[in-house]
Amino acid sequence: MDVCLGLLGCGTVGSGVIELTRRRREKIFELTGLRPKITKVLVRNLQKPRQVALADERLTADPEDILGDADIRVVIETIGGIEPARTLILRALAAGKHVVTANKDLIAAHGPEILEAAERHGVDVWYEAAVGGAIPLIRPLKECLTANEITDIKGIINGTTNYILSKMTATGAGFAEALAEAQALGYAEADPSSDVDGLDAARKLAILASIAFHAKVRLEDIRVTGIRHITAADVAYADELGMVIKLLAVGADRDGLLSLRVGPALVPKDHPLAHVNGSYNALLMRGDAAGDLMFFGRGAGSMPTASAVVGDVIEVLRNLKLGVTGQAALLCRPDKRVLPDGFDPVRYYMRLSVDDRPGVLARIAAAFGDAEVSMESVLQKRAYEGRAEIVILTHEVPYGQVERVAAALRSLAAVHEVHCVMPVEPAADGGVT
Amino acid sequence: MDVCLGLLGCGTVGSGVIELTRRRREKIFELTGLRPKITKVLVRNLQKPRQVALADERLTADPEDILGDADIRVVIETIGGIEPARTLILRALAAGKHVVTANKDLIAAHGPEILEAAERHGVDVWYEAAVGGAIPLIRPLKECLTANEITDIKGIINGTTNYILSKMTATGAGFAEALAEAQALGYAEADPSSDVDGLDAARKLAILASIAFHAKVRLEDIRVTGIRHITAADVAYADELGMVIKLLAVGADRDGLLSLRVGPALVPKDHPLAHVNGSYNALLMRGDAAGDLMFFGRGAGSMPTASAVVGDVIEVLRNLKLGVTGQAALLCRPDKRVLPDGFDPVRYYMRLSVDDRPGVLARIAAAFGDAEVSMESVLQKRAYEGRAEIVILTHEVPYGQVERVAAALRSLAAVHEVHCVMPVEPAADGGVT
Repeated sequence: MDVCLGLLGCGTVGSGVIELTRRRREKIFELTGLRPKITKVLVRNLQKPRQVALADERLTADPEDILGDADIRVVIETIGGIEPARTLILRALAAGKHVVTANKDLIAAHGPEILEAAERHGVDVWYEAAVGGAIPLIRPLKECLTANEITDIKGIINGTTNYILSKMTATGAGFAEALAEAQALGYAEADPSSDVDGLDAARKLAILASIAFHAKVRLEDIRVTGIRHITAADVAYADELGMVIKLLAVGADRDGLLSLRVGPALVPKDHPLAHVNGSYNALLMRGDAAGDLMFFGRGAGSMPTASAVVGDVIEVLRNLKLGVTGQAALLCRPDKRVLPDGFDPVRYYMRLSVDDRPGVLARIAAAFGDAEVSMESVLQKRAYEGRAEIVILTHEVPYGQVERVAAALRSLAAVHEVHCVMPVEPAADGGVT
Repeated sequence: MDVCLGLLGCGTVGSGVIELTRRRREKIFELTGLRPKITKVLVRNLQKPRQVALADERLTADPEDILGDADIRVVIETIGGIEPARTLILRALAAGKHVVTANKDLIAAHGPEILEAAERHGVDVWYEAAVGGAIPLIRPLKECLTANEITDIKGIINGTTNYILSKMTATGAGFAEALAEAQALGYAEADPSSDVDGLDAARKLAILASIAFHAKVRLEDIRVTGIRHITAADVAYADELGMVIKLLAVGADRDGLLSLRVGPALVPKDHPLAHVNGSYNALLMRGDAAGDLMFFGRGAGSMPTASAVVGDVIEVLRNLKLGVTGQAALLCRPDKRVLPDGFDPVRYYMRLSVDDRPGVLARIAAAFGDAEVSMESVLQKRAYEGRAEIVILTHEVPYGQVERVAAALRSLAAVHEVHCVMPVEPAADGGVT
């Protein structure tokens, strides 16, 4: 039996979904007893050339052709962004259609609204493709790992910044140069802000942390730092210290108190996340029963994203056949609180430029002493034109104290700039060396 | 509402299941609307001291107390081995009870019989814990990744051999010494054959390959080599070549022709599997849409295994509440064939001991030439008492040809022994370096 699907959007992801749905039509029939058929595709411009040859699929510029078509049981949204995606999805749900979406912006900002609408109308919303591309993350967290309390999630979930930082590490390029190359290759957008300023990773972290920690995590709960200020010098110092710089998304749940951050961090070279390069994504999770887990794979791209979208469509079809909604309830514990500075103590990396004259290091050391932050190592480097560059690695210290010492340093006359303050990831546990 | 569960076996895994079910009782109620309660536990010896304090759970030595108890809706099997587990599970299914099992031996040998019995009686069998301990592997393959044709699975799925090989690599110990230490620490059994001869990994590969490739893979379809013959010398040569030795389980599907092997292999140090040490497991998968994925985590242990078992129990409870059976149908394509020697061409490592006199290397090279196998590198080493050790790395070559050259070498008078022939893993793709 055929099931009609409507597709919203026909860009990179939408084209992959059309292609993969065709390729797997008979397999999906074997698995579910239903044969998916994308009958209508909403586009803005009917004349624009398409990346995929359209056969059964009829293009339309009128959402009503899909939302008002009673034969269409499932709507797949690949437009991205908040509007018109939000309104279209809410209308599809109200019309009793199941929804599969790859839209991280929307789920991060309006997830609760969308999920409540789905529940009210007795249909499902699936969004595996919103985080981690092809990597199954959301369903394992929501289904396979439910016997755990998840205490930590930590990962590389933005391909653009990972490409840029991998490039800087491999070639010694600066940020601007690596960004320009990423843009030329299509890995970064013309306006790269949402990626390089950490917002995209923060949206994905909000989605993952909400599921993992049974909380309603909002974007503003997350402390976000981007990578624009990372220089070739930071990458080189990290290398000297046996580390690489990665943009990490980190969430922790300590007995109901959450801390959430996105930002560049130093990762020891023997840590599993140090080896996740280019457009790959990876997520480490720690469960109280399972221990440490890592999932790794392609975080973006037409077919990897389609793999997740069509996987969700298959789940919808299974449930249609069984006559149930399959959405596993998301637990939400209202008593979970976000501590803005509640990060576990770790070591921090700092790079300063200072006057190159006697006594400066003593004043810096005094500022650390006053803030009760002890230094593990100090590198003094590259004196030029009366300036020296100082790279400090602290001992383990709570986040608030590092902020205090950075403020104190900024107030010293001999300190010209505190360029960069980054946490240092602890070494991975014994199993991974 | 309470749901009664019966537990078969109360060893390491069973104790973990009791502990974790208790710890998560209220969370499971929030998730499913049902409160799990293990009411009866089958043990052989009622008097034996237990690793867990028993409260609600009543011990019994009579299986009928569980199988004949109409209140018990779900049976959890943690006895292991074929009998009596097989008979007890078949009787539980016939009595209309859902079954969750961690039993890889049973599923590998009798999976089809058990799954058919479950289908006939309208109940489910779940067995996530049978492979990879805490790592969700079976459900992601059966559910999340179904939009893919999986072409490759490759991993480290036996903790005992991984512990032994990690130890040999870290300390230079020989096999016997590392095994003795694994036994002393409880990582290896008194009779370690099933682990060190590769059978345990082969059983798990049979389970994974059956799911991934939609085939009925039997143990005898897999070419199995253990690690008893790996010496400290092999580990040291591998290190010189920039590699580590790992016991890999490898399956490939090339347009319906399957090749399946378990055995030690040389893995480049920058390959993600090279960093999976100790009791950790990892599985790489390649899907035609998703590309490369890796899942990593604890492969054994009381709580990690319980994490998978109780995760399955939660799924059963969700389905009980919905009034459906949730077992996603396993596709099985009867036209898939196993090619015993159908492995993709790779490089091979060989270690020989030979007479230490002029002309020997020429004869060896001639044997390679006759078999049309070209050598990438030759190390001649450690001459003593008229013997030399030769380590050869071949270029990429199909498996059959390597076997032919090894047979030809064994027939040479100057060759005393061909100690070890191991495939060399290709470098990982660009994303992971």
